[in-house]
Amino acid sequence: MDVADGLAALRDRFVLDTASDHAGGAAGVYLDGNSLGALPRAVPGRVEDVVRRQWGELRIRSWDESGWWTAPERIGDRIAPLVGAAPGQIVVGDSTSVNVFKALVAAVRMAGEGGSAGAAPRDEIVVDASTFPTDGYIAESAARMTGCRIVPVLPADVPGALGPRTAAVLLNHVDYRTGRLHDLPGLTAAVHAAGALAVWDLCHSAGALPVELDAHGVDLAVGCTYKYLNGGPGSPAYLYVRRELQPRFDSPLPGWNSHAEPFGMRPEYEAGSGAVRGRVGTPDILSMLALEAALEVWDGVSIEAVRAKSLALTDFFLECVDAYVPRGLVESVTPSAHAERGSQVALRCEGAGDVMRRLIERGVVGDYRAPDILRFGFTPLYVSFTEVERATRVLGDVLA
Amino acid sequence: MDVADGLAALRDRFVLDTASDHAGGAAGVYLDGNSLGALPRAVPGRVEDVVRRQWGELRIRSWDESGWWTAPERIGDRIAPLVGAAPGQIVVGDSTSVNVFKALVAAVRMAGEGGSAGAAPRDEIVVDASTFPTDGYIAESAARMTGCRIVPVLPADVPGALGPRTAAVLLNHVDYRTGRLHDLPGLTAAVHAAGALAVWDLCHSAGALPVELDAHGVDLAVGCTYKYLNGGPGSPAYLYVRRELQPRFDSPLPGWNSHAEPFGMRPEYEAGSGAVRGRVGTPDILSMLALEAALEVWDGVSIEAVRAKSLALTDFFLECVDAYVPRGLVESVTPSAHAERGSQVALRCEGAGDVMRRLIERGVVGDYRAPDILRFGFTPLYVSFTEVERATRVLGDVLA
Repeated sequence: MDVADGLAALRDRFVLDTASDHAGGAAGVYLDGNSLGALPRAVPGRVEDVVRRQWGELRIRSWDESGWWTAPERIGDRIAPLVGAAPGQIVVGDSTSVNVFKALVAAVRMAGEGGSAGAAPRDEIVVDASTFPTDGYIAESAARMTGCRIVPVLPADVPGALGPRTAAVLLNHVDYRTGRLHDLPGLTAAVHAAGALAVWDLCHSAGALPVELDAHGVDLAVGCTYKYLNGGPGSPAYLYVRRELQPRFDSPLPGWNSHAEPFGMRPEYEAGSGAVRGRVGTPDILSMLALEAALEVWDGVSIEAVRAKSLALTDFFLECVDAYVPRGLVESVTPSAHAERGSQVALRCEGAGDVMRRLIERGVVGDYRAPDILRFGFTPLYVSFTEVERATRVLGDVLA
Repeated sequence: MDVADGLAALRDRFVLDTASDHAGGAAGVYLDGNSLGALPRAVPGRVEDVVRRQWGELRIRSWDESGWWTAPERIGDRIAPLVGAAPGQIVVGDSTSVNVFKALVAAVRMAGEGGSAGAAPRDEIVVDASTFPTDGYIAESAARMTGCRIVPVLPADVPGALGPRTAAVLLNHVDYRTGRLHDLPGLTAAVHAAGALAVWDLCHSAGALPVELDAHGVDLAVGCTYKYLNGGPGSPAYLYVRRELQPRFDSPLPGWNSHAEPFGMRPEYEAGSGAVRGRVGTPDILSMLALEAALEVWDGVSIEAVRAKSLALTDFFLECVDAYVPRGLVESVTPSAHAERGSQVALRCEGAGDVMRRLIERGVVGDYRAPDILRFGFTPLYVSFTEVERATRVLGDVLA
């Protein structure tokens, strides 16, 4: 399978097989790229140039001469094709949590415009009840600050929860725990049919499978860049605002970087045009330009090919688990249907925390999610089938 | 003066006098550390280790093993002595704008607690009318989202604007344009006498002069780290929440990093204890650890000595301007009284934009603020008196 893998050569674009990976005696297998992607080889040299030359020598001049000022939009445009967005709709910066806040508040404000006289207000935010917690916490805050209430439902139950009072719906494309891929086209269409706005969190899908934001008319989306986009620890997140909505995007965090004339230093706020409206304060240049270098691994790579390999990897992993792990010790909570699977597999397992600790001691790095989940992520750019086989063999040994 | 300067040796802790600095033929003079501090020598090596070893080899293990997870509080404690704060009250992360939002919304919420029955609500936010614009824009948003109104007044007029409806007051310690140092102790006391909370923006004072947050009972404060703290372009900002207020600090951005049990992945939000309440999402590790290395330049340095040199530098600059610049061509808008001066001098000058362009061509780097201000910042850690003399001589030549 590795010989037939058209993406196999991409592995050379990453730093892998280091001394640390061999610390357990055998070659390690990194299956935690869904938490922190491996280091792309282009990054260290770029970061060194940014630090030593751009900051150290050019200093303040780099805001213009090294393209610092325009980095948030430029790097947004580099992410755009990976999530099916035309240029000019994505801006990079801040954390995912902060971007969820911007997106949800702006969505509620847009949903509240132009209601007919006497109509009930759109004051409900529907939120995935199984969401990664920060989305839920931030949604609560957005609701509290815009006079809305939260309606928590599982994604499958969203259509039944929609109504004339729904302002916005916040959903995860892929569930962080189970790896379930939700129906973005169908759910977005249902949200639109109810007259509400759809906000998607792409943290666990962008870079692992096609998203097609434009094609499905998604309104707003956010995502991190340190998982399948390999931007580095805590690298800046991004915000997508569909082009038609940009003139109405009314940010709750209207920092000076989003102003129509940032260096005019005008006391009155006037929002800029386009994706720049999603900016807030001064962009975090070191992390942002590391991300820009990291995104070069995508040069010439088709996201469809990545998706095909991702499914082959997770299929093979499940097959190997069946072959190597004594029956009854683990149970996959990741859907077997391809249309419902992201790029990770989650196994329910007694004593999962302890099992993961022992796997890591033997060089197989996944992660543990309380109370009983072993989570394995498969980054098609650098994970091989040989590694999948080796990881499951170690898992079988540990559990036996 | 340089021979007698007890801080002169600190210059060696920075990368200066590079080839770019000599591009104009003569040695350049960097007087823009109030916009972007110079590169501390410890940074490139540290960043390389963070990228190559911590991220590239240890990967996900670094969240524990390399101290990534606790970096926001640890680095906050490193900043604390520079602003007169005991440990446990500062957290690093996000941009200044985002931290202004957290601080102001939390201040309004705290001010609204425990009012007596029948009392008018505290629904006014007093904001420095001459503020750096982003503070004003964000304050408008905070007011809009908390049902308050903005009362814009110049800092000197704040006492007269306070009343039983004042919830919070947002002030700059040093004005970004004129370099005027405002009376933090006196204004904070006045705000407290009115029963309101004081929020200070320290962007242009921290690292240049003593701030003494604890001693003066400041409630909340924010600041950037890329000016006098030399953290690098867009390095993360910080938030100070006075210890006694922390249990009541109710963040509008309650991301998972501020949760009492972040990895419990609990659907209900429960705020953590202490400075951690100011965190939001995953911290930006590359930029944050570059900042940590940058802060090592402060080892063994007294902020009082820094202040003394800062005043000597700005005094000398004004004296040299008098000596070298033909009379009537520039006028200082920076107060001459030491008690009212930060660490910059702003000169009003016809054609200031063009003049600054010509200064930069000759290696003297300050900046220009529309419509007519030449701004020069003096970082006492690395600016010498010889440089000040040279810079003013070039200014005199250019203007003559």
